[in-house]
Amino acid sequence: MNYTKMSKEELQQALGEQNKVLKEIKKQKISLDISRGKPCPQQMDITMPMLDMINSATQFPKPDYRNYGGLEGIPELRALFAKILGVEKEETVIGGNSSLQMMFDTVQRAMQFGVCGGKPWNAGKVKFLCPVPGYDRHFAICQHFGIEMINVPMTPAGPNMELVEMLAASDESVKGIWCVPKYQNPTGYTFSDETVERLAKMTTAAKDFRIFWDNAYCVHDLYEQGDKLANIMDIAKEAGTADRIYEFASTSKVTFAGAGVAVMAASKNNIADVLSHMKFQTIGFNKVWQYAHYLYLQSPENVAAIMAKQAALIRPKFEKFEEVFSEEFGENSGIARWTKPRGGYFISLDVLDGCAKEVGKLCKSVGLTVTNVGDTFPYGVDDKDSNIRIAPTFATEEEFEQALKVLVCCIKVACIEKLIKISEK
Amino acid sequence: MNYTKMSKEELQQALGEQNKVLKEIKKQKISLDISRGKPCPQQMDITMPMLDMINSATQFPKPDYRNYGGLEGIPELRALFAKILGVEKEETVIGGNSSLQMMFDTVQRAMQFGVCGGKPWNAGKVKFLCPVPGYDRHFAICQHFGIEMINVPMTPAGPNMELVEMLAASDESVKGIWCVPKYQNPTGYTFSDETVERLAKMTTAAKDFRIFWDNAYCVHDLYEQGDKLANIMDIAKEAGTADRIYEFASTSKVTFAGAGVAVMAASKNNIADVLSHMKFQTIGFNKVWQYAHYLYLQSPENVAAIMAKQAALIRPKFEKFEEVFSEEFGENSGIARWTKPRGGYFISLDVLDGCAKEVGKLCKSVGLTVTNVGDTFPYGVDDKDSNIRIAPTFATEEEFEQALKVLVCCIKVACIEKLIKISEK
Repeated sequence: MNYTKMSKEELQQALGEQNKVLKEIKKQKISLDISRGKPCPQQMDITMPMLDMINSATQFPKPDYRNYGGLEGIPELRALFAKILGVEKEETVIGGNSSLQMMFDTVQRAMQFGVCGGKPWNAGKVKFLCPVPGYDRHFAICQHFGIEMINVPMTPAGPNMELVEMLAASDESVKGIWCVPKYQNPTGYTFSDETVERLAKMTTAAKDFRIFWDNAYCVHDLYEQGDKLANIMDIAKEAGTADRIYEFASTSKVTFAGAGVAVMAASKNNIADVLSHMKFQTIGFNKVWQYAHYLYLQSPENVAAIMAKQAALIRPKFEKFEEVFSEEFGENSGIARWTKPRGGYFISLDVLDGCAKEVGKLCKSVGLTVTNVGDTFPYGVDDKDSNIRIAPTFATEEEFEQALKVLVCCIKVACIEKLIKISEK
Repeated sequence: MNYTKMSKEELQQALGEQNKVLKEIKKQKISLDISRGKPCPQQMDITMPMLDMINSATQFPKPDYRNYGGLEGIPELRALFAKILGVEKEETVIGGNSSLQMMFDTVQRAMQFGVCGGKPWNAGKVKFLCPVPGYDRHFAICQHFGIEMINVPMTPAGPNMELVEMLAASDESVKGIWCVPKYQNPTGYTFSDETVERLAKMTTAAKDFRIFWDNAYCVHDLYEQGDKLANIMDIAKEAGTADRIYEFASTSKVTFAGAGVAVMAASKNNIADVLSHMKFQTIGFNKVWQYAHYLYLQSPENVAAIMAKQAALIRPKFEKFEEVFSEEFGENSGIARWTKPRGGYFISLDVLDGCAKEVGKLCKSVGLTVTNVGDTFPYGVDDKDSNIRIAPTFATEEEFEQALKVLVCCIKVACIEKLIKISEK
């Protein structure tokens, strides 16, 4: 059923039906939230054995992990992250529980001190390239620092590289780009080998240009055959651009969302630069917690096994979305398109232009919270007003199915109303 | 025995004797370190039961501490810190494992964004008052940010307040002061009630002046009757200067040095300001670890009981220092004076002017590492070249006693050599 080809009468009849459904939904007084990429309790239950890995009888390795020191993190966990990310152990620094914090601090350091001996970014105009739709917390960091954000459309192969290359090459104030290269937030797209290669090899007007490679979903496959992401560090090393890459990851969605361990990977130059500032900030992060993580995670193979258990819990929700939306809209509804991620935490939904905010409002009015519409774009401005980020993981399967019914109805009401208005012009 | 009153011949004879002792020490090929304020393994063994407080059967409070959220920290631990510091729960924010990080980040935020809506400190000249001798990591933060440091001498009652008041009142670029108000690092002095009151009430030319109140040793008494520190927040609230105070503390020397929990206490204005920036930096710190801390620490009374156990381990070392130095130098040697702290982690030792660096060098040459001489002063410059910080806690009692013998001999050699040179002038 293609709504855009319906007559005004057909639209009005459909609207009447959907308004009835909406009224019924309202009566149920639901309270559901599919706004944030939070793991569900059952996912975190998988990690509970980690809490038995250390106890009062634990003998910690020397130099005593309970004491001060070890700014770069414990060697065992650095080695494990290095294997997972395809870098050398010496190209990693382990942080606290938040990769966001490592990214924020990296931007802050660049603003205050510059990178690798360059001028502080505070000294001039700074712009970042922002693939859209993208991750709201990346954009919020830029906005907080007064960094000007330039939208670059996402494609299924990654950001539009013609545009990225043109902007990076022509403007010295373009200092960085935010990338979630695998199972991008919110599209779920994985950058193609060509995209990765072009990012590593492109000409940048700024000598201190940095790619913020937020590999948040590096091991977060929903299926045994996950998307393959090219190793940007390898390509950059060969191209002589290794210092361009700041890679970030964490176990927030491997172990505990609020109590994982974050890691930064970068060239030895970059790591030395980071540590030269970080040594004034802290004597070292929590090595006891790092050790518990190491004992629990052990190896890339074991991490993959853990992630398969997590996938078993959340895959049905992603598939439920596909099932419900295929059935309700199909490929040619004219009012809803969505992505079909094979990993990560989000689905990107595009509704009829000019309707996303209204869908969000309608959802809210009947008790369903979706990601604040607009937040997937810099400054919260989605010019087309079409994008909505769906976060299937936190709700139970039953709740999520119920949320989808509400969402479907709200999309139909908002979009049909819009089409009726258009038809009246 | 007052070395400064000896004849040249007496000095030469004494030097000959000490050089023999030093030669014997050198033969022993020792390797000792009394440079940093690290707890010893036995102190950290006291904390091992904390690791049994959470395990795979733990039911975490709602909202699920394992998940994202809770930027300010878990309410139980905020309440406990509030009781210990004498503030309200809402006047606290719990951080990661490092109060140093909270201090660094607080300075960085002020530099980049200003405090409570004021101009960024980066926009002008910034100076900090630095009680000396003081904590090297405080000074290092200032130096890293290009903040000019102004020395203010410590007295047994705290920093020289005439000087502090004069400098704070007369110069708008004086934005802050570093204070370790209880068992100061390295003197062990506790600020008097009058000092605390004057700090809270003094006139400051800068409207955004901040006292960095690093209450690192708030519960770190060596004796049942500990020093009493006035509650600066209470006084400041009454004086209408509550926004002037940033207080910091941590459990680094209560639980694990490398895996404790840090806290910041401040007025609700300040906390709101801090959180308004911090929310871009992280979704929240490690609440699982916070909860383990809460279950282990429980109450101020229980914390006091834990600290009494720690004191029992380290008090003998502080007392050994007093015993050895009283015997070797007494009160009128003319070449060595030292403090007698009733808590904290350090003893401040002053040797004959112009001799501290030489003492450090001699110690190093025979295998004893003391805190880098000069580090207790901004820019590493002790004008008098007399101060050496002693950190008794990490070494075993036997090692510490051996270290003291080496130190005594090196002091005597360096100072007697100096006195001989003076006598030759």
